[in-house]
Amino acid sequence: MYLNERMSQFLDDLASGAPAPGGGSVAALSGSLAAALISMVCNLTIGKEKYKDVEADVRTILNRSETLRHELAELLEADTQLYGKVIAAYRLPKYTDEEKTVRLDAIDRALKEACGVPMQIARRCAELVELCVPAAAKGNVAAISDIGVAVLMAEAGLVSAGLNVKINLGSIKDATFVQEAAAEFEGYMKSKAEIKARVLEDVEEKL
Amino acid sequence: MYLNERMSQFLDDLASGAPAPGGGSVAALSGSLAAALISMVCNLTIGKEKYKDVEADVRTILNRSETLRHELAELLEADTQLYGKVIAAYRLPKYTDEEKTVRLDAIDRALKEACGVPMQIARRCAELVELCVPAAAKGNVAAISDIGVAVLMAEAGLVSAGLNVKINLGSIKDATFVQEAAAEFEGYMKSKAEIKARVLEDVEEKL
Repeated sequence: MYLNERMSQFLDDLASGAPAPGGGSVAALSGSLAAALISMVCNLTIGKEKYKDVEADVRTILNRSETLRHELAELLEADTQLYGKVIAAYRLPKYTDEEKTVRLDAIDRALKEACGVPMQIARRCAELVELCVPAAAKGNVAAISDIGVAVLMAEAGLVSAGLNVKINLGSIKDATFVQEAAAEFEGYMKSKAEIKARVLEDVEEKL
Repeated sequence: MYLNERMSQFLDDLASGAPAPGGGSVAALSGSLAAALISMVCNLTIGKEKYKDVEADVRTILNRSETLRHELAELLEADTQLYGKVIAAYRLPKYTDEEKTVRLDAIDRALKEACGVPMQIARRCAELVELCVPAAAKGNVAAISDIGVAVLMAEAGLVSAGLNVKINLGSIKDATFVQEAAAEFEGYMKSKAEIKARVLEDVEEKL
């Protein structure tokens, strides 16, 4: 469990040539940092007289950001396991025809999972980009720069997760899976980059 | 020392309403993650027969990414101290004229430091964006997506640090300091966003 390790250990292991953690885990961590910053701004807003009128909305944002934060933390852990599963599938015996079939099925399953985890990271990062819109509008303006950092980390996490989806899609044989994943991913990228730019404009105005 | 804490502790403290850590620390962490990913790709390249011709260059990249990684880790710690220093300056006595002068000087010094730390984070993140160009050209192509994630994290760290510079510049009275800092920051933003886009194109082609 990397979340229970020292941060310096995670950075050292990341910098090493060990197979995990890698870019997928960083995408999940980037999303977790975005979620934590949204939560922080909500916590700096709730209970303040000046923000009494939006307090219920801010509590709703906080509930969502905390859920996403914990889900992304779990996905960080899941991502560090993926490489081992793919390697294990490739190492299955391939002497008989039956073994070959079993092995290829196992490889395809492992690759789909290696694609599915970053897809889940991408979906949550995309939602966090969107969550920055109401957070910037309703959160404590004294902490507005933190929403700017949040939207940057959420979008960087989204695009990073996308790269980890793409690198695996090329090896998957299930054409329907590949098409659907590629289509969903393209949709995310464009619309979220636009939302990020808008949130950053909003933040810069209020700085 | 946050680097010696569990990662979950950093995320929990970030999500809380406590004054530190905040967006500045996340900018430094984002840069550290970028540096670690560059180091990882270098470590996956060095010693491989296929990359023998570029090994010396890759070692040079690795030296630089590891130096930047450790500097950014120190800046992460420094950033968590800034808020306390600004608050301490504001809390100095202001009864006599002499006390008022001493207090205003202390506030200006603390604010300049609160600006200087994210400026140093921004400079290192900017260098990391640039370091991704040779890393993408010479690093192990099997890990090319990790250079994509690195450039995303480096640029997100740069822009995030920039927001933390801007939010402090407004309160600083030293006009020369403010002008120079603003000019340096604007220069970074444009050129590095272009480099990021180019590295991502390069990565996508090789995926």
